[in-house]
Formats: sequence, structure tokens, C-alpha cells
Amino acid sequence: MRIQALAREGGKLRFIDQTKLPLELEYREVGDYREIIEAIKELQIRGAPAIGIAAAYGLAVAVEQHGEFKFDHLRQVAQQFKEARPTAVNLAWAVDRVIRFVEGEQPTTFAAARDLLWAEAEAIHTQDRMMCAAIGRHGAELIGPKATILTHCNTGALATGGIGTALGIIYTCVDQGKKIRVYADETRPLLQGARLTAWELQQGGIDVTLITDSTAGMLMQQGKIDYVLVGADRIAKNGDVANKIGTYSLAVLAKAHGVPFYVAAPTSTFDPKIESGDEIPIEERSAMEVTDSFGRRTAPYDIAVYSPAFDITPAEYITAYITDQGVKEG
Amino acid sequence: MRIQALAREGGKLRFIDQTKLPLELEYREVGDYREIIEAIKELQIRGAPAIGIAAAYGLAVAVEQHGEFKFDHLRQVAQQFKEARPTAVNLAWAVDRVIRFVEGEQPTTFAAARDLLWAEAEAIHTQDRMMCAAIGRHGAELIGPKATILTHCNTGALATGGIGTALGIIYTCVDQGKKIRVYADETRPLLQGARLTAWELQQGGIDVTLITDSTAGMLMQQGKIDYVLVGADRIAKNGDVANKIGTYSLAVLAKAHGVPFYVAAPTSTFDPKIESGDEIPIEERSAMEVTDSFGRRTAPYDIAVYSPAFDITPAEYITAYITDQGVKEG
Repeated sequence: MRIQALAREGGKLRFIDQTKLPLELEYREVGDYREIIEAIKELQIRGAPAIGIAAAYGLAVAVEQHGEFKFDHLRQVAQQFKEARPTAVNLAWAVDRVIRFVEGEQPTTFAAARDLLWAEAEAIHTQDRMMCAAIGRHGAELIGPKATILTHCNTGALATGGIGTALGIIYTCVDQGKKIRVYADETRPLLQGARLTAWELQQGGIDVTLITDSTAGMLMQQGKIDYVLVGADRIAKNGDVANKIGTYSLAVLAKAHGVPFYVAAPTSTFDPKIESGDEIPIEERSAMEVTDSFGRRTAPYDIAVYSPAFDITPAEYITAYITDQGVKEG
Repeated sequence: MRIQALAREGGKLRFIDQTKLPLELEYREVGDYREIIEAIKELQIRGAPAIGIAAAYGLAVAVEQHGEFKFDHLRQVAQQFKEARPTAVNLAWAVDRVIRFVEGEQPTTFAAARDLLWAEAEAIHTQDRMMCAAIGRHGAELIGPKATILTHCNTGALATGGIGTALGIIYTCVDQGKKIRVYADETRPLLQGARLTAWELQQGGIDVTLITDSTAGMLMQQGKIDYVLVGADRIAKNGDVANKIGTYSLAVLAKAHGVPFYVAAPTSTFDPKIESGDEIPIEERSAMEVTDSFGRRTAPYDIAVYSPAFDITPAEYITAYITDQGVKEG
């Protein structure tokens, strides 16, 4: 089964509510752009490339919903989308691209503006799908015929407009007949590894084993991991990578054990305006995600919690970056 | 508040059901030794020193319950206790110590045997309390007047017969007027850090912040951690340490960041019969602890899970061992 996390459905955005996975596969069709922003904030839609695509569609939904086209309105909506989540650059990249495109086209009627917006959102979606395929092809060249891969968070069809970034490489390897075994970190606090990656790979018939995040070190110690493959939310000019919390720990462990550490991301993840990881804003999430996220309180009340959603992996830990344009040594 | 996890209550063992924490502080009084074995297996009683003490009390409960003393019966019960959990050496150590003591004393009446068993269990408990205090004193000498300490799992009053091992050092530092800040790893899958350490330190008025396990690396990267303090379930002759899964990852991270990594444990944790960590049996726990432990299924059905309860940290990663007999450089 190939999953499609996002799609245009007439004047609405159709998407999988990823907070319901893995127990319920629920599609939502939303014609109110504010609900799309909420869905991004609540991680019903997540994954750096996917939230960029969702925001592009969201701008079309907003104009559709408004029933008329005013540039000021569009710019205001664009700003709201950009503020939904701060770390992934793809969100701002996609929104800015749509705005620039509409500015260039100067539509004079509602119908023209609406059609341009949908067309550009679909172009961004299609381009992401093709970038995923290219990342998959380039990445697969680095992976041996029989390999065990450790991955973190979710970087697959649920996180992108196509087959994914790091998981896209895994799908491509399997399609090429390689014998791939995957260990999926559960990825606390929100368990994207357990809820999304394990589910998505299982649906795809991939050999996947779920582990807690802190089991990764032991597996590397035992020589059981051949490669670590992760995605990225933003990559600075110097090569520093912002990605899901825990990525940095994996990178240090990989280096200590001589395991190649690959970052897979479309070119839109590279932020030319950011010199190094120090400048990347790190979103801090609600303490509740650590203390209450599974329907039961699992920590004392009034406890202090520190819950950054992302960490920064310095360039020196990265063996190579795998993009749609090829492989770049770290 | 000073918590006592275990105590004799007439002919029964009184203990906190730690699976109910942090939301309910429930004491159980149990007069059936089989229920004590179950409580150890289900982690109602956990922590390497605490399960040793509980087993010693459990032997007294078994004879009390049996209403007569037969050596064969006691040896049979002893074997059942030793099989309850395989990794912590303290369990076997305490049981063997009681058996040897009774063998030496050769009691001829039920009353004499029963009294000897309770006395020896209480002696083990008292000795552990004193060992905790000594570990606290020795360990505190290594900690500066103002320090931020990262700890893993639970090694406090809930895990021992006294103030704890790694947490005992923290309590001692605070009693000495040192300004201590603690980051507690939540410790997946069973969240002993979130449920037990965060609760216990909060009860004790200690400045504690809860983090996910994979946030530890980022804190070290930012220079926020001065020391890592952990306990141990078994220490081999060559200094390799078996402890809660995730300990090894922390040790690698600590080494990479130049953070001292201390292991605190009573001398009964050192196993003279084991040459290296390779020989220590590692308990594998139920997949359900990873997929279902918070009252809600958080992974797909039929997913493969690898869930070792412990990992091995090689001696080379350990800055020093802090025991009741003093500090030994690693």
C-alpha cells in the first residue's frame, strides 16, 4: 500500500489526521484554512516537506473560502501559516514561493487567482514527489545489498508529498531487491516512530522492528546497525542540521561506533539565510506531550519539564547529505 | 518527606506498589511469598538493592506462611525468588546470604528458624540503609558546591533500603547545603524517571526537571550537565556495568562531551563470578511495555519489538565507581 498523506479534493485539502494513527486511518477534508493551520500546529499534518505542501494548499483554500481575491488578505493568511511552526524551513519556503508566484502573475479576477494558487500548490506537491523519488535513487546507491538501517521519527509518505526522504531511500532499496531490515526509534515524546514509521513500513511490507530511543546505542555497540538515516527540518549554510530531538544523540553514537550517518532532505530544506545551527529557532513543545500524551498522566503534577522538539547536529557528525540533486559528502 | 519503599509489618512485607506512582501512593501488606515474587516480576518492587531486600523478607514470609520449617522448602522458595529477575545480582546475593546464614545456624524449631530469617532480612535491610548513607557521603565529595546532575531510571529511596545510590548522593549534597539541579531522564519504556525519580525528588524538595531520554545529548552539547550519576544492576570483575537500557548511550555521550560519568552502587552489586559484561544475562521485557504501557495502544498491532531492559556500559566509559567503601577510579 502506498499512502498519500495530502491531496487536493475540489476546493478543500484532504489529509490523514496523523494523531489518530496507528489505530485509525482517518482522512479529513477541510475547507477552512484556519483548520489547516490548527492541524499543522497539532501535528495532524507533520513532517517538514508535508507541512510546506499543506501550507501551499492552505493558501488556495483560504482564497477559495474568502470568495474573493485580495492580496492583503493572502499575505495575512501567509503570515499565519508561517507562524504555525518555527523550525522547519520548508513551511516558510513553500508559502514564500506561492506568494512570489502570485505577485509575478498579478491575477485580476478571483477565478484567475484561485486557479493560480491551486496550480502552484499542486506544482509544489508534484515537485516534492519527484524530489522524494530522486532522493530515494541517490540514497539507494549508498546502501549495500543487505543492510540494517536505523531511523528516527517519520520521514516517509506521511511526512512528504511522495515516498519520503530517509524512508524513501528504504522503499527504493527494497524496490531494487535489496534485503533491508529497519530499526525504528519510537521517538519520544510523540512517538512518530512507533505510531507512524512502524505503521507505514508495516503497511509497505518492510521488515521493521520498533525500539525505544535509548536502545539505539546498544544496537550500535553490538554492531547491528549498518547505517543511520534521518531527515531534516532545516539545514544551515555550514551544514548543521535541525531535526527531531534525539537526532544529535544518534549522530554522536554513530560517530563513536563508525556507523555512517546520512541526512536525507530536499533542497528546500537548505536555508541560505542561516549561517549555522546556532541561528535556527528551536520550537519548545508543551510539557503535556511528555507528561500526558498517552491518555494517562505518567509524571507527577507540577513537575518542571524541558521539551525541545528539535536539536542541532553539527555538520562534522554527518557522513553525507542526500538530496534530490545528489549526494554531498559531509 | 523521606519515603520507605519496604518494611517488615509483623509477619508480612509492607511495600509501595511502584506501578501506581506517581498518581497513587499505595502501600501493600503481603503475607504470601508468591505475591512478593509476582510484585518483583511486575516491578511493583524494583531497583537492584530493593529487590534483594524484598527477597530476603520474602523468605521469612514464606516460612511464616508455611507454618513449619523445612530446609528443602526454603531452598525451593529461594530458587523461585532468584528466578524472578535475571540481571540484578543483588537478588541472588541476598537470597544466598540468607540461605548460608540459616545453614550455619541450623535452627531446629519453626520459631527459631522464623526469627532467624526475619533477623537476617532486617540485617540486610539495615546494612543497605547504611551502605546508601556511605555511598551518599563518598559521592558527595566528588560534586561541586553548585552542580547540575543528569540521572537515569530511579536509584533513590524507592530502589533501595535507604536514601538510594545515585539519588542518595544528590540527597546528601543537598543536605550539605550544595546547590543541586537535577535533570531526570524519563527512562522509557516504563518511565521510572518520570514516575518515580521526578516524584521522589519533588517530594524531597529537590530542583528537578523532567526530560525525554533523547534530550540528554542536547543538554550535554549545550554544556548544561556537570555530572552524570547512575546506579547499577550488576558490575563485572573488569568493571563493566549492567544498568537500565539507555545507560550506555548516556556514557558514550558523556565521554564525547567530557562530562564525568559516575556509577553508584553498594558492594553487593559487584559480581566476583562474572569476568565481563558479555557474561551478564540481559532480561528482555514484554513488547507490551513499549507498545501499550500508558493505557493506550501507541504502535501498530503485530509489530516486531526489541526491548532489552538493560545494557552494558564498558568500564572504559566510567569515570569512577562510588561504593559504600569509597570511590574507585574507573
